[in-house]
Amino acid sequence: MIDIALVGIGKIALDQHVPALKSSDAWNLAATVSRSGKVKGVESHADFDAFLKARPDIRVISLCLPPVPRFDYAEAALRAGRHVMLEKPPGATLSECEKLAELAQSQRLTLYATWHSRAAAMVPAAKEWLADKSLKRLQVTWKEDVRRWHPGQDWIWEPGGLGVFDPGINALSILTEILPDKLHLKNATLEVPENKQGPIAAALDFVHPHGAKVSADFDWRQEDDQIWQIEAVTDAGALLLDEGGGRMFIDGQEHSASAAALSGEYPRLYARMAELLATGACDTDFEPMRHVADAFLLGHRKIVDPFYD
Amino acid sequence: MIDIALVGIGKIALDQHVPALKSSDAWNLAATVSRSGKVKGVESHADFDAFLKARPDIRVISLCLPPVPRFDYAEAALRAGRHVMLEKPPGATLSECEKLAELAQSQRLTLYATWHSRAAAMVPAAKEWLADKSLKRLQVTWKEDVRRWHPGQDWIWEPGGLGVFDPGINALSILTEILPDKLHLKNATLEVPENKQGPIAAALDFVHPHGAKVSADFDWRQEDDQIWQIEAVTDAGALLLDEGGGRMFIDGQEHSASAAALSGEYPRLYARMAELLATGACDTDFEPMRHVADAFLLGHRKIVDPFYD
Repeated sequence: MIDIALVGIGKIALDQHVPALKSSDAWNLAATVSRSGKVKGVESHADFDAFLKARPDIRVISLCLPPVPRFDYAEAALRAGRHVMLEKPPGATLSECEKLAELAQSQRLTLYATWHSRAAAMVPAAKEWLADKSLKRLQVTWKEDVRRWHPGQDWIWEPGGLGVFDPGINALSILTEILPDKLHLKNATLEVPENKQGPIAAALDFVHPHGAKVSADFDWRQEDDQIWQIEAVTDAGALLLDEGGGRMFIDGQEHSASAAALSGEYPRLYARMAELLATGACDTDFEPMRHVADAFLLGHRKIVDPFYD
Repeated sequence: MIDIALVGIGKIALDQHVPALKSSDAWNLAATVSRSGKVKGVESHADFDAFLKARPDIRVISLCLPPVPRFDYAEAALRAGRHVMLEKPPGATLSECEKLAELAQSQRLTLYATWHSRAAAMVPAAKEWLADKSLKRLQVTWKEDVRRWHPGQDWIWEPGGLGVFDPGINALSILTEILPDKLHLKNATLEVPENKQGPIAAALDFVHPHGAKVSADFDWRQEDDQIWQIEAVTDAGALLLDEGGGRMFIDGQEHSASAAALSGEYPRLYARMAELLATGACDTDFEPMRHVADAFLLGHRKIVDPFYD
C-alpha cells in the first residue's frame, strides 16, 4: 500500500476522497492536513510545512483545497520532493497550472491534474462510440441547484472560484475527452448576480472544425430535476450521456458500463494516480481550464438578480 | 522583395504597417484587403476569399483586423497555404491561438504572433541588463488617454476587445520578454464602467519566484502626461524603461539604443518576419495573452462610472 496525505478536509474530501482511499487496497490514508477538518482514526496536522517536515516518508499528497490557495501547497509539496494529485480545477490561473507542470517535470515527480468527471462510468464508451462518427450537433446541459451542492462554499462565488463554471468545467472536461476534434469558443454569455463576482449561468457556443453546432448551457438555478447531460447527434445515430457521464444511451437504448468503470469516479482517479506513479509519468491536461479562461475573456456579462444562499 | 498583402486597413495599418512596408527594401505591399480602407497606389480587394483565389502568388499575409474576426482570416490564409503575421493580441481566445499554432506547424507554414512593444528600441538592452541582476521589485505603469489613442474603436470595449488590456498587453509583452523568471498572477482588480464590457483600469499583483514584488497598474483615464513605464529595482541598481520601451535609464542615466533598434517597432517586426520565412520557423509566444486571460479569470470586478467617448 502507498501512503498518501490528504490536504483540505472539506466537503469533497469527506464525500469522495476519504471513501475512495479507504476502499482501495493500493492506498493507505496516512495523514490529513487541515485547519479544522479531521478524519477519525487518521493522524492529523494543522500546518502544511510542519507536516512536510514531520512526515518525509509520505511521498504522495492529494490536494482538495479550493483553487485559489492550491498553488502554494502544490508548489511547496513538489519542492519538498512529493508527488501531487490536484482536485479540479487544477489552479486559479492558467499560468499557475503551467508552472506546476514545469516544476513537476523538472523535479521528475508525478503531477496529476484530475478531472473526476472524465472518470465517470460511461465516458470511455462515449469516446469510443464518437471516434468514428461525423458530428452534426452537440448540446451540453448542466443545470443544478447551487444551494443543494455547494452549501456554504463562499469561495465558489469569489474571483478564482469560477461560479457556475465550477460544475461547468466538469462538462468541459468530458467534452474535451470524448470529442476527437478540438473546439474553440466563438461566443459566450455569462449571467452574474449583481451581488456576486462569479456567474450563476453561462451559455457557450463553440466552433467545431467540421462545422457541427456545439453549445453548452450551464445554470445553477435549477431547483427540480438536476440535469448533467451531453447530447450528440451524428451521421450514425444520437448519443445521450446522462447523469454527468454515468449513463449512456444510443438512439434511446441504454448501454451498460464495464465492471472496471463501475468502481466510481474517485476510485478510478486514485487507480490512475497509482499507475502514473508506477510509470513515473505526469497527467496535466489543462484544456478544460483554458476553455473557462476563454469564456471569461470573451464572455458578454449580463448582470442579473442578486443571489442569496 | 517579398510580396505581402495587408488585411484590415484601419488605424494601425495606416499608422504603422503601411509606412513600415513602404520603407523596407525586403517587402513589397502587393495588395490590401478591407471592406472600406484602401492604400493609394496598391491593388485593393474587398473580399478575402476572392483575394486568396485571385492572388495565389502572394505567399505572405499580415492581419491587422481587430482580434475577434482575426481567427477566421488566419485559418483561411493558413489553409490556403499562406504564411501569416498576426497583430497583437494574436486572437480573441487562447484556444484560437493554440489552434492556429498547431495548424501552421502541421502545414509547415510560418506563423508570427507579433508583440510590437517587444520590438521597442530599448527592450533588448533592458533584457540584457536584467539577466544577471537579482530583482527586488518591479512596477509597471501604463496610463494613457483612451479618447486620444483609440478614437471610434468600439470593438475595443466589447468582449474579446480586452478594454485597457489592449494597451496593457503591450506592457505584459515587454515584462515577459525582459524578465529571466516567469511570473504568475496573484490577484487583480478590474474597474469596469457600468456601460461597458471591458475594463477601463486594472491593478495586477504577480508572484515572482524569488519573492520580488511585481505589480502593474493600467489606466485609460489619463488625460495629461501619458505614461508607459516599467521600473525595476535590483540588487545592483534601478532600471527605468520609459516611453513604452523606447528609452532606458539605469540609476537615472540614459542609455542609447543600437542603430538597428532605432529603425522602429514595425520595421523590426517585418524584418523578423523575413527572418522567420527564410528559416521556415514560427514565433508564437502566447504568454502575454495567458496573463490577460488569468486577469479576467481571477480579477475582482468593480463597477465604476460610465464612460462616454
